[in-house]
Amino acid sequence: MSSPVDELRSLLPDGAVLTEPADVEGYRRDRADDRSAPAPLAVVRAESTEHVQIALRWATRHRVPVVPRGAGTGLSGGASAVDGGIVVTTERMRGISIDAPTRMAVVQPGLLNAEVKAAVAELGLWYPPDPASFEICSIGGNVATNAGGLCCVKYGVTADYVLGLEVVLADGRAIRLGGPRLKDVAGLSLSKLFIGSEGTLGIITEVTLRLLPAPPPAKTVVGWFDSTAAAAAAIMQVVSAIRPSMLEYMDRTSINAVEDSLHLGLDRKAAALLVARSDSLDPSDDEIRTILEAFVDNGATSAFEAPEATGERYVHARRVVIPAMEEKGHLLLEDVGVGARQFADLIAGVERISAARGVPIAFIAHAGDGNTHPLIAFDPDDPEESARAYLAYGEIMDLALELGGTITGEHGVGRLKRPWLVKQIGEDALDLSWRIKQAIDPDNILNPGSIFAPIKETP
Amino acid sequence: MSSPVDELRSLLPDGAVLTEPADVEGYRRDRADDRSAPAPLAVVRAESTEHVQIALRWATRHRVPVVPRGAGTGLSGGASAVDGGIVVTTERMRGISIDAPTRMAVVQPGLLNAEVKAAVAELGLWYPPDPASFEICSIGGNVATNAGGLCCVKYGVTADYVLGLEVVLADGRAIRLGGPRLKDVAGLSLSKLFIGSEGTLGIITEVTLRLLPAPPPAKTVVGWFDSTAAAAAAIMQVVSAIRPSMLEYMDRTSINAVEDSLHLGLDRKAAALLVARSDSLDPSDDEIRTILEAFVDNGATSAFEAPEATGERYVHARRVVIPAMEEKGHLLLEDVGVGARQFADLIAGVERISAARGVPIAFIAHAGDGNTHPLIAFDPDDPEESARAYLAYGEIMDLALELGGTITGEHGVGRLKRPWLVKQIGEDALDLSWRIKQAIDPDNILNPGSIFAPIKETP
Repeated sequence: MSSPVDELRSLLPDGAVLTEPADVEGYRRDRADDRSAPAPLAVVRAESTEHVQIALRWATRHRVPVVPRGAGTGLSGGASAVDGGIVVTTERMRGISIDAPTRMAVVQPGLLNAEVKAAVAELGLWYPPDPASFEICSIGGNVATNAGGLCCVKYGVTADYVLGLEVVLADGRAIRLGGPRLKDVAGLSLSKLFIGSEGTLGIITEVTLRLLPAPPPAKTVVGWFDSTAAAAAAIMQVVSAIRPSMLEYMDRTSINAVEDSLHLGLDRKAAALLVARSDSLDPSDDEIRTILEAFVDNGATSAFEAPEATGERYVHARRVVIPAMEEKGHLLLEDVGVGARQFADLIAGVERISAARGVPIAFIAHAGDGNTHPLIAFDPDDPEESARAYLAYGEIMDLALELGGTITGEHGVGRLKRPWLVKQIGEDALDLSWRIKQAIDPDNILNPGSIFAPIKETP
Repeated sequence: MSSPVDELRSLLPDGAVLTEPADVEGYRRDRADDRSAPAPLAVVRAESTEHVQIALRWATRHRVPVVPRGAGTGLSGGASAVDGGIVVTTERMRGISIDAPTRMAVVQPGLLNAEVKAAVAELGLWYPPDPASFEICSIGGNVATNAGGLCCVKYGVTADYVLGLEVVLADGRAIRLGGPRLKDVAGLSLSKLFIGSEGTLGIITEVTLRLLPAPPPAKTVVGWFDSTAAAAAAIMQVVSAIRPSMLEYMDRTSINAVEDSLHLGLDRKAAALLVARSDSLDPSDDEIRTILEAFVDNGATSAFEAPEATGERYVHARRVVIPAMEEKGHLLLEDVGVGARQFADLIAGVERISAARGVPIAFIAHAGDGNTHPLIAFDPDDPEESARAYLAYGEIMDLALELGGTITGEHGVGRLKRPWLVKQIGEDALDLSWRIKQAIDPDNILNPGSIFAPIKETP
C-alpha cells in the first residue's frame, strides 16, 4: 500500500523529494537553531513553480503542513520543521534575468542576495537591501521576511524594491501580483501583503525587483565613545540632521568579540563604536562634517573620517559581529527596534536584563533606524542557563514594547517571537490578520505556528 | 416613528449629519463627475475617530453602504455616492503634530496634501508625494488611493511615506496598524494592504508619515520635440541612464490648452515638450548634461537648462494642463501606465483611438515612470459623443494592458475602471482580493462598487 509520501515522490522527478533521515536533517532547523524542531516528513527541493504547485496540491489533499524554506538563514525559527509536515525549499530555483535599461530584474527565489547584487552590479546596477547575512541568505527568504540590513536607514527595506511576485497558494494556484510597473494601483496591494508574510500565505516562486543605478562612493566616519549614552546621543544628533547611508553601533562586548577573532586593533576598553557612512555627492561634504560634529559634540573620545581601506575594515568589523560572537558560544539573536529617542533607554534596559538574568548580552544595532540586535550568549546544553536566556529574550521584547518599539525590525516573528506579537499589534489587528490568513489558506497548511498559533482555531 | 437616519442624527453632534438635498448635493460626486451618481441618504462630517466609529456601527446595524470621502478630488469615481448609502467625510479631521528631530508627522485624514507639505516645510522638512492636485486633495484620500505625483520617479509614492495608520473597520472597531517605527516586520503588513484600498476595507482616521530633510534645490532642463516618437526615445535614454527628480511630458494639445489659458509663449507647433529636473548635488552636473544629451541625441528642436524662474514656469505649465483643458470642456481623465519601452507605442495607439472615436485626446505623462494621463474631451450633454468618449476610455486601458501596463498608475480603480480590473490582475488575484475584502468587511458595507462589483456575491 502506498503512503502519501510515496505518492508525493511519484509526482515529482527523482531526487526532488528527500525522506532519508540523514538527508532531511539539514532542513529541520533554520539559523535560530530551535532544538525542539522535529525532522520533516519529507523535503521537496522544487526546481520550478510547477513543482511547488504539485507539492502544495498534494499537501492540501492530505492536510499536511508545509514549511516554506529559502536558504534556512532565518533567525526567528520561521523555517523550523513542524510535526508531520514537509519542507518545500526553493534553493534550486536560481534563475535571474535583468533588463538593464529599465533597471528591473526577474529573479527566482533561491538565488542568494549576494548573487543578485553581483549579477546586477556587472551591468552597472545596484540592488540595495543588504542583510548582514547577504552572502548566505536567499532573495525568496528576504521577500518572505521583508529583510532589512545596513543600508535601510537611507535606502529602505526589501519591500521598497519589489514590484511584483509570483506566489503559489495553498491550493496550488500560481498567481501573479504586481509586475514590472513602477506605479500601479490596480486593486488591493496584494504583493505588499505577501511581502513579510513569512510563508504563511503562499510560497514565493518569482520576484520582480526594481534596481538603482550603481551606488555613489561612500565615505566613512568612525566614532569611539566611553559611554553608551554618549553614543546614543550622537546617533540622535546625526539622524535628526541628515540621512546617513549607514549608521552602525557596536558595544564593548561586540568590539571584543571581533577583536578576539580578527585582531584589527580595535579599542577593547571603549564602551561603544559608531560606524557611519555618507554617500552624498554634495561637494561641501556637509554630511561628513555633520557626523563628525555630532560625534565630537557628544563626547567621542575619538572621531575621524577614515581612509577608504580603513573604512572598509570598520564596516567589515561590524558585519562579522554575529559570527565572532558565535565562536564564543550559542546565541539567541534579538531584533527589537525603537525610536532614536528611546535608544539609550533600550541599551540601559538590556544591560539591566543581562545582569539580572546572568547571561552576557552583546549589543549591535542598525542605529540609524533604531533596529537593534542584542545577542544573548548561553550554553544550550545547560537547561537552567537556557531558560534564563529565553527569559531575557522575552524581557527585551517587553522592554522594546514599553518603549513604543517593535519586537522585530527585520528578522520576522517566526515561531520564537509569536507569543509576543499580540502584545505589540493588539487583539484586533491579530484577529484581522488571522481572518486574512484564513481567507487565503483556510486549512492552515502554510507554515502553521509561524506568526499565528499552530492550532487553527486559536490564532 | 424614527427612521434609521433620525437615529444616526441622534448619535452625532448637531451639524455633523447632513440630509437636506442642497447640503448633500456637494457630496454626490467626486471629480470624476459621474452624472449617474445618486444623492446620498445622508452625509456624516466626522470630527473624530469616534464619530467615524459611530457612523460605521450604525451602518453595519442597518446594512447601509458607506462611501468614505476625503476632499472629493478622486478621478476614478471612488467617492461617488451609491444608492441608499451614506457618505462619511473626514474633511473636518484636520490635526497635525510633527516630531521634527525624528522626522515624523501624525496627521488626520482631512488635512490637504499642500497643508502637510507647508506645515513640515516650516520645520525644514519635506513630505515628497505631490499629486498635481496637491493643493486640493487630502492626505486621507492620498493614502486611500496610494496617490503619486511628479516626484515619484525618484521619490516614490504615498505608500513609501506611510509608517502607520489608524483605521475604522466596518464593524466600528478602530485599530492601529504599523506605527512610528522605521523598520517593523511584526506580523502581516496590514498597513500596506489598507494603503490604496480605496475605502473598501476601512476608513482611515490617522496617518503616521515619515518625512525627509528639506529637498535639495533642483535644476530644470526643457526639451522641445517635433515628433512624439523623438520625445519618447529621449525619455528612454534619460531613465536608463539616471533617476531624474522629475520628467514630465506634454503633447501639442496640452501645450496649446495651457498657452490659451496662460499666454506663456509656448511653442504651439511643437509635437511634444519634456520638462526634466535633477536635484543631484554632484558638482560635475552629470545629470543635467545627461538629460541635455538625451534630448539632443534624439532630435530635440531645442534643449536647454532653464534659469530658476523659467524652470518654475515650465513646471507650472505642466501642472495646469488639466484645469486648462477643463476650460475647454468636459474631460474624462485616463491614468494608464506602461514601461519606458512601450511609451511611444502608447502615444501612437492613443492617437489612433482619438481619430477612430472622433474625440480629442490630450496626452500628458509623468514620463519618468511611464504613468500617463490621456485626457479625453467631450460634451457630456451629447449622449452619442459621451458614448464615444467612454469607448475610447476603455480602449486606452485595453491598449495599456496589451503593452503590459496598468489601467491605473495613481488614481485608483474606483467605479469607472472596475470593469477592466480583472483583465489586468486576472480571475485568481481578483478572487483572492475579494476573499480578503469579505474577511474584513463581510457585509460589504464599505464603498461597494469601488474596486469590487456592487453585488456581494459577484465580485
